[in-house]
Amino acid sequence: MNYKHIFAQAIDRLHEEGRYRVFIDILRNRGSYPNARCFHGHNGPKPIAVWCSNDYLAMGQHPKVIAAMEDALHDVGAGSGGTRNIGGNTHYHVDLEGELADLHGKEAALLFTSGYVSNEATLATLARLLPGCIIFSDELNHASMIAGIRNSGCEKRVFRHNDVEHLRELLAAEDPEAPKLIAFESVYSMDGDVAPIAEICDLADEFNALTYLDEVHAVGMYGARGGGISERDDVADRLTIIEGTLGKAFGVMGGYIAADQMIVDVIRSYAPGFIFTTSLSPVLVAGVLASVRHLKASSEEREGQQAAASMLKTMMADAGLPVMPSVTHIVPLMVGDPVKAKRISDILLAEYGAYVQPINYPTVPRGTERLRFTPGPAHTEAMMRDLVSALVEIWDRLDLEKAARRAA
Amino acid sequence: MNYKHIFAQAIDRLHEEGRYRVFIDILRNRGSYPNARCFHGHNGPKPIAVWCSNDYLAMGQHPKVIAAMEDALHDVGAGSGGTRNIGGNTHYHVDLEGELADLHGKEAALLFTSGYVSNEATLATLARLLPGCIIFSDELNHASMIAGIRNSGCEKRVFRHNDVEHLRELLAAEDPEAPKLIAFESVYSMDGDVAPIAEICDLADEFNALTYLDEVHAVGMYGARGGGISERDDVADRLTIIEGTLGKAFGVMGGYIAADQMIVDVIRSYAPGFIFTTSLSPVLVAGVLASVRHLKASSEEREGQQAAASMLKTMMADAGLPVMPSVTHIVPLMVGDPVKAKRISDILLAEYGAYVQPINYPTVPRGTERLRFTPGPAHTEAMMRDLVSALVEIWDRLDLEKAARRAA
Ligand SMILES: Cc1ncc(COP(=O)(O)O)c(C=O)c1O
Ligand SMILES: Cc1ncc(COP(=O)(O)O)c(C=O)c1O
Repeated sequence: MNYKHIFAQAIDRLHEEGRYRVFIDILRNRGSYPNARCFHGHNGPKPIAVWCSNDYLAMGQHPKVIAAMEDALHDVGAGSGGTRNIGGNTHYHVDLEGELADLHGKEAALLFTSGYVSNEATLATLARLLPGCIIFSDELNHASMIAGIRNSGCEKRVFRHNDVEHLRELLAAEDPEAPKLIAFESVYSMDGDVAPIAEICDLADEFNALTYLDEVHAVGMYGARGGGISERDDVADRLTIIEGTLGKAFGVMGGYIAADQMIVDVIRSYAPGFIFTTSLSPVLVAGVLASVRHLKASSEEREGQQAAASMLKTMMADAGLPVMPSVTHIVPLMVGDPVKAKRISDILLAEYGAYVQPINYPTVPRGTERLRFTPGPAHTEAMMRDLVSALVEIWDRLDLEKAARRAA
Repeated sequence: MNYKHIFAQAIDRLHEEGRYRVFIDILRNRGSYPNARCFHGHNGPKPIAVWCSNDYLAMGQHPKVIAAMEDALHDVGAGSGGTRNIGGNTHYHVDLEGELADLHGKEAALLFTSGYVSNEATLATLARLLPGCIIFSDELNHASMIAGIRNSGCEKRVFRHNDVEHLRELLAAEDPEAPKLIAFESVYSMDGDVAPIAEICDLADEFNALTYLDEVHAVGMYGARGGGISERDDVADRLTIIEGTLGKAFGVMGGYIAADQMIVDVIRSYAPGFIFTTSLSPVLVAGVLASVRHLKASSEEREGQQAAASMLKTMMADAGLPVMPSVTHIVPLMVGDPVKAKRISDILLAEYGAYVQPINYPTVPRGTERLRFTPGPAHTEAMMRDLVSALVEIWDRLDLEKAARRAA
């Protein structure tokens, strides 16, 4: 048994497929985001503009958020010092759960250390508590949902992406008495399309299934108060569980679910990923409280972000770049090859000071490697013009396909 | 299919067994820890002393940690805005991984959002990469290791707690060519005993097994630089992987592994729980950097904590209280019944302003419910004297068994 050999082979496979990941080492400049410093290469940090952050609304830089975190730091200190049950349940946690329950019009909410953990822990626990449960999962669901479903040990049926007819067929094929759970996302973050939530809820009603909606890329971003696509489409009350992150539009870190009191109590009481871990730092929780409260009242950031995204999409399409047909704030540019995607990204960073990470397998299916831009309210029109002309130059230099792929 | 009914039953079971958990809602007072405010009950916050925090050395209150977090907050903002691969790899993360690798004398380290996630993700991924791997797991291993082992889908053999002879039997019974991994902890935090690390490493050498050591309750606390029991016992270089938390003695939040470069690269490249999640907030990472660096150079906190723990153990034993035979900084008091443990804890909080959480199943086996005290450098002798006389009064009031249980 030669362990080294097996591990070396695992790494070699990544290099061979051109998807060995190199993390770009950066520091953002607070107050002047999307500007940042890049520590990649030699000659010390150099200035770059970040085009791939999921801090969509730059709330991680918002003065209210920074001030709230500073206050908490000085009031209570750095960490919570314990699990929620053993010394780590601060007043901030309790307040934030109330605020998030209210955001989604649910009775209760529950915090986790990340969106990943909220998905994994909730799905695995819920399904394990329902003997014989069958989970119906959209084929493009995020890795954290897939992990939760796998770890639940349940039967799983995968329906074609956003395909309500296929979902109906799968539901109809099962015993009407079996417990059922439909797990899906609102905004699919690598393509920028949106699920037909109301239709899926109709099916859930018809087949007596529970629903679990990941709104990670939509909370803070859609709906009059930032309650996500389920708020925008006025269907929040039809969903059993809404899940979100505190690390993207809210700008900090952490995750949560919102649901009725009983379900939250069950997950709180039975999910190992919730129970056996130090709770979120009160400093983070205080920051999120400020962020959620601000975005409940202000739509300025959302509107600025949507305007920036549609401007960039239009500019790219006009320049003949293969921008994918996103209906949301996500601006994905199809490349279709991991080596080329990395090459474009490397040139952008080295020659143009524009940082956009190539997205490769397993984040997206093989052969659909892409660049994914997330312009925000602080990316100016001039920055976008520079970016697009840089892309056109690189596309020509590398002899890449142009808008032919646009239909993809 | 009545979902409500099933969930209600799940909650009822907890009430019936007396282990329904009520989270005590507190805020610590920075600068005067262990003093805190409790929001439990009516009439607004009331002052309490915290006796059950895992911020063992009060580093979460340390001026250097607070200052470093404040600087980061002002320099780069609240959150990282992305996964490690997509925009969320800051210079702080890179520096901290270097610092942690150095702490354990390993080539590399890798950060996770929590100690729970580091255990789950690493064990599940490592074992999945080794076809036919068998994991040998101490029977008292933490829930996060158990989750990782379960989610790996591997064969598992459970050895009796700290029982090297039993482990040898189990190893000898397997195919010598099968990949093997021994997973265990250094300090078991609910009992306060310590694993025979060197003897387990001897067996690993003999049977060509990898070793995985959870040092969550020991990092920062033992060894000349806070490298844990593996540093104290001078065996760090014999272990394949050392895992730790940033949320207990280091006072902030997060988790990590340290190992050779190849293993870290494999986990970095293949573990979903590492890949698909927003990275630790740079604010937290900056705080941990300050904390780890401080505790590498200063032993004052460690010594103060050990002195406080042995003083409290002695006082409890002298008072005839059933303190368990811990050889570490943990001070567990056996009760053996969930309802009584909760009752004692409730009286301590309501009448004496002393907060110590009852520990019940599934954190400890049924019938071994206990109170677990973690005095630190800031708990004074006078506070301990008050605590012990309160306990004696309650023990008499509730007619509880005294030191008879001490041998347990
Ligand atoms: C759809 C989706 N769900 C969940 C997550 C995990 O959230 P978090 O980053 O808070 O762990 C992500 C991304 O990170 C995601 O894209
Ligand atoms: C032995 C052990 N390992 C791992 C963990 C998880 O660490 P974290 O709190 O950082 O998630 C804990 C406790 O929380 C623990 O007691």
